[in-house]
Amino acid sequence: MGSLKLTLAYDGTAYHGFQEQRGSGLATIQEVLEQCLGKLAGHRVQVVGAGRTDARVHARGQVVSFPAAGWPVPVNRITPALNGLLPDDIVVVKAEEVAPEFHARFDAVAKTYRYYIFTGRLPCPFQRLYAYYLSRPLDAELIRQAAEYLVGTFDFKAFQAAGATTKTSVRTIYAAAVEQQGDMLSFSFRGDGFLYNQVRIMVGTLIQVGWRKIPVTAIPEIIASGNRTLAGPTVPPRGLFLEQVEYPLAVLSRVP
Amino acid sequence: MGSLKLTLAYDGTAYHGFQEQRGSGLATIQEVLEQCLGKLAGHRVQVVGAGRTDARVHARGQVVSFPAAGWPVPVNRITPALNGLLPDDIVVVKAEEVAPEFHARFDAVAKTYRYYIFTGRLPCPFQRLYAYYLSRPLDAELIRQAAEYLVGTFDFKAFQAAGATTKTSVRTIYAAAVEQQGDMLSFSFRGDGFLYNQVRIMVGTLIQVGWRKIPVTAIPEIIASGNRTLAGPTVPPRGLFLEQVEYPLAVLSRVP
Repeated sequence: MGSLKLTLAYDGTAYHGFQEQRGSGLATIQEVLEQCLGKLAGHRVQVVGAGRTDARVHARGQVVSFPAAGWPVPVNRITPALNGLLPDDIVVVKAEEVAPEFHARFDAVAKTYRYYIFTGRLPCPFQRLYAYYLSRPLDAELIRQAAEYLVGTFDFKAFQAAGATTKTSVRTIYAAAVEQQGDMLSFSFRGDGFLYNQVRIMVGTLIQVGWRKIPVTAIPEIIASGNRTLAGPTVPPRGLFLEQVEYPLAVLSRVP
Repeated sequence: MGSLKLTLAYDGTAYHGFQEQRGSGLATIQEVLEQCLGKLAGHRVQVVGAGRTDARVHARGQVVSFPAAGWPVPVNRITPALNGLLPDDIVVVKAEEVAPEFHARFDAVAKTYRYYIFTGRLPCPFQRLYAYYLSRPLDAELIRQAAEYLVGTFDFKAFQAAGATTKTSVRTIYAAAVEQQGDMLSFSFRGDGFLYNQVRIMVGTLIQVGWRKIPVTAIPEIIASGNRTLAGPTVPPRGLFLEQVEYPLAVLSRVP
């Protein structure tokens, strides 16, 4: 008996993040998903999520896994069955059987996050939950140059939420991209992992660059300083999407 | 003293339509707008809306008007002042001074509505409030041909909500367009006015054509029949947007 791997898309607006907040009494994506999985399975199911998205953060490619022991639904029927039970702001995009030892968080080798900034003359009511609105013009070319300095293996302590406790704040960013489509500016970062609030602080810092408040060449200095106060503010959660979580082929193709 | 004309964009998801439902106790766009206008004016303001969008129907170009008597805010300051008071799902796009006799509903000469259908393999959580999801493939070319038959001056009784009471159900549709962008199919209709639920019933009928349940050439017969039961079902409100309301230049340029 293997494990099951689900890929999820969700609108995080109505939830207090992905992960169960014990005692908070607030709905999380994980709770709602586990309730629906429990209904299908006829027994309690506990999942592991690849990334702990915060309240109001969205996902197009969150990944969860759980042991398939006693699981009664054929793999090719899981997506329709689960989508029939889930509220319409959570959608199962894919269901796969994987080896029993597969772990959505520990086996992940890369994650991609995207952040959207809407820069129209006026805010747009249809983007308000999915993008951060900034009326002040940004220099996208400066932002692009600054984003390049974030690519590499660094101690990203300056870009970590104050008070965070992790063994190491060294992370590798494989790629950073800045795209402009009409009034929408988006930033994407692919890395081996991200510190708590790292993407939102990096975007907050790049905005300062786009406003010429922080020079492009200051980025390496901010990284080297390890000083959170030198980086920009943490941008709001609503513009953030967990786009993709990647696993080694060898892990995925291991026979269940 | 003239009148004021405001152009609004709003996400109708959280509202029970544009127009005040006396005694219903439910929030409408009009109520929320009038409350904010009242705060700015220091006295009660009553507006007239060009179109009575239903609950969950959206707008990118709704128009309202009201007498400017005693109005204290300069026209070029109305948009920022009002947007500072309005909730973020209602945005004033434009504010203009017009002649005192201007009436947002009676002076309108054309309205454009757009309806979105999302046709992806799976529903999209980020489109769920702004498009109708249909997994079954539609023949866009058949829909395009059928939509052409709706253009013209006809008695659209067959495309009117049952029980509606209007003096005449004759309306003119100036243009109908069907666009496909990726997984999103959109229909737009520009006409001199629309009957209650007309756009949603026309779209419901075109979907039947796209599924080959109603032949393209049946459209003129359905119109001629005046029989609501021959047209398709009324599609849900969430895919519908009031895009634009047009007025004669002579009316807009009349000196206040």
